[in-house]
Amino acid sequence: MAADEFRLRRERLSAEFGTHKVDALAVSSAPNVRYLTGFTGSNGLLLALPGGDGVFFTDPRYRIQSQQEVSCPVKVATGPLLPQLMTAARRLRVRRLGFEAAHLSCMLGDALRKELPLGATLVPVNGWIEQQRMTKSATEIAAIRRSVETNSAAFEQAARHVRAGMREFDLAAELDYRMRRAGAESTAFETIVATGARSALPHARPSDARLAAGDLVVVDMGAVQGGYCSDMTRMLFLGSPGTKVKRMYRTVLEAQLAAIDAVRPGVTAMYVDRAARQVLKAGKLDKAFVHSTGHGLGLEIHEPPRVGKREKTRLEPGMAITIEPGAYLEGFGGIRIEDTVVVTESGCEILTPTPKELRVI
Amino acid sequence: MAADEFRLRRERLSAEFGTHKVDALAVSSAPNVRYLTGFTGSNGLLLALPGGDGVFFTDPRYRIQSQQEVSCPVKVATGPLLPQLMTAARRLRVRRLGFEAAHLSCMLGDALRKELPLGATLVPVNGWIEQQRMTKSATEIAAIRRSVETNSAAFEQAARHVRAGMREFDLAAELDYRMRRAGAESTAFETIVATGARSALPHARPSDARLAAGDLVVVDMGAVQGGYCSDMTRMLFLGSPGTKVKRMYRTVLEAQLAAIDAVRPGVTAMYVDRAARQVLKAGKLDKAFVHSTGHGLGLEIHEPPRVGKREKTRLEPGMAITIEPGAYLEGFGGIRIEDTVVVTESGCEILTPTPKELRVI
Repeated sequence: MAADEFRLRRERLSAEFGTHKVDALAVSSAPNVRYLTGFTGSNGLLLALPGGDGVFFTDPRYRIQSQQEVSCPVKVATGPLLPQLMTAARRLRVRRLGFEAAHLSCMLGDALRKELPLGATLVPVNGWIEQQRMTKSATEIAAIRRSVETNSAAFEQAARHVRAGMREFDLAAELDYRMRRAGAESTAFETIVATGARSALPHARPSDARLAAGDLVVVDMGAVQGGYCSDMTRMLFLGSPGTKVKRMYRTVLEAQLAAIDAVRPGVTAMYVDRAARQVLKAGKLDKAFVHSTGHGLGLEIHEPPRVGKREKTRLEPGMAITIEPGAYLEGFGGIRIEDTVVVTESGCEILTPTPKELRVI
Repeated sequence: MAADEFRLRRERLSAEFGTHKVDALAVSSAPNVRYLTGFTGSNGLLLALPGGDGVFFTDPRYRIQSQQEVSCPVKVATGPLLPQLMTAARRLRVRRLGFEAAHLSCMLGDALRKELPLGATLVPVNGWIEQQRMTKSATEIAAIRRSVETNSAAFEQAARHVRAGMREFDLAAELDYRMRRAGAESTAFETIVATGARSALPHARPSDARLAAGDLVVVDMGAVQGGYCSDMTRMLFLGSPGTKVKRMYRTVLEAQLAAIDAVRPGVTAMYVDRAARQVLKAGKLDKAFVHSTGHGLGLEIHEPPRVGKREKTRLEPGMAITIEPGAYLEGFGGIRIEDTVVVTESGCEILTPTPKELRVI
């Protein structure tokens, strides 16, 4: 990513300063810091200033790395970074300092308040950067696309090795390994492999349970590549699926396709969620669908907008979201099908290239 | 872990209630919730009550899982969990509700305040659970030991495949794969593999840089197994190391051994840090040592106590800490050697079984 892109993002951010009359913004959320500076480490703070300027703070472990990554001036501090940021803010005569109320603990918020110079005010600010991050640039979409392709390639390679008797975590290890070899920095979340009745746990952790004939297997996996996430769920079946599984699979797939069909600029996220829910209701599976239809993703695996029942955000070109309806029957099993899609001018593009039929092993 | 152990932990926690006169504590930090309930999911809240009682809150995705894992009563709520917790607190006539100020955002803290019934008070509470978690039970030490052994086994298997021409992330992928196959649920952090001059970045991310003859290679890796973390750093050298590398390695190793020697009940963490620092100073490498000597670990990869310059916490039997001095020379390379140790009645036990000489490939 060119340094210019980070500066442009900071400029766009500082255009918001007027709405809350802040002179500067203390950015403490790691993905927001990365978005605005390019810094990939774990301990960094940005004091965002008018016009796209900024001062970046980190600790000595990241001295060299921050000089390579960050385009604005860097201060390396020993000890807590917030007091250093406050010292800089004082020197710059900041009167109204915005801070990320959703990304600063009550404890640090209180500490910050105590360091405030006389006459200065702390202003809680929410969602400015997340709002900006919702709509991805071409560079960002390219990064998400690479991450999605890596993820799908890893799935394809690992799926060839699936056989009865394998433990859930053996398959998870294989998937993760293939992702890393294909260029991912890490997984976007703990890879889910759940077999048989365990597939009814939407967020199961891979266990030592063995894949057995007659099992539904859910695989939910995502890569992080170039900092950007992907997310996909596919179903495997060992042996020959019965009528109930087939019918359930068809219904969930139809729900997923209906939701994808509903994605276009101007519609609300809840409209997309409803499209999936209506199909599941017609198939009497609406009560078995216990989560939202999807979520935004980018530098984080879960970003706004939530594609859920009450989410009124309107979709815009450049938003990257997952579409992942599911149905979970305790004691029987669960089915979820998930793609990563990006909103285009006329509808959406499905980034995920992996075929969507039930994969029979 | 037996349900009894979780109840005992909650009992021990509620014995602290008197010091701040709280009637109940809202536990929001995920590892603290896990420590007190056994819940391994990502969205859970505990209302801890006197005498070890409690009410646990989660969302519908975790309905089945929470019933399997959590020993106290479970409430499954749709939507945000905090208001639900507040409703329960109101019904239980809680007057002074403690909350984890370090683990609740300013935004959620404000939301909680607005829901307070008339006459009730929110009381910020810090470190009660972390304090309790610092000293590990026999079950916990056994879990850490298993995690350490998995980590070392994975290193041993992967190290056999190291050769010039391999990319950093190929080796990282191999290490992660071996960890998973050996029983780890996940890595405790993004595995570090950094070669040549990149080894001078203490927190480098694996890149596509290739291992080359004459390179120092740092490998810093940790597993999570049964929820518990391990952490180890070892150095490889491709070819025949020169005098400078050898001298630097010897100094860092001596610093590490000196710090381990210093570990025993009753001494402060800063005393252990100083032991490492003195050796590095004698070897003129103190300025190249840009971080702390170590940190506690358990359910999280970084837990109190920090084994750092100003940390006055006194070591006690059952504490699990890392000892990891290092030296980093920009443009040349870095060396770090790290073990996980546990404080015993008379000194410490080094859990990490991996040999500590520079591994020449």
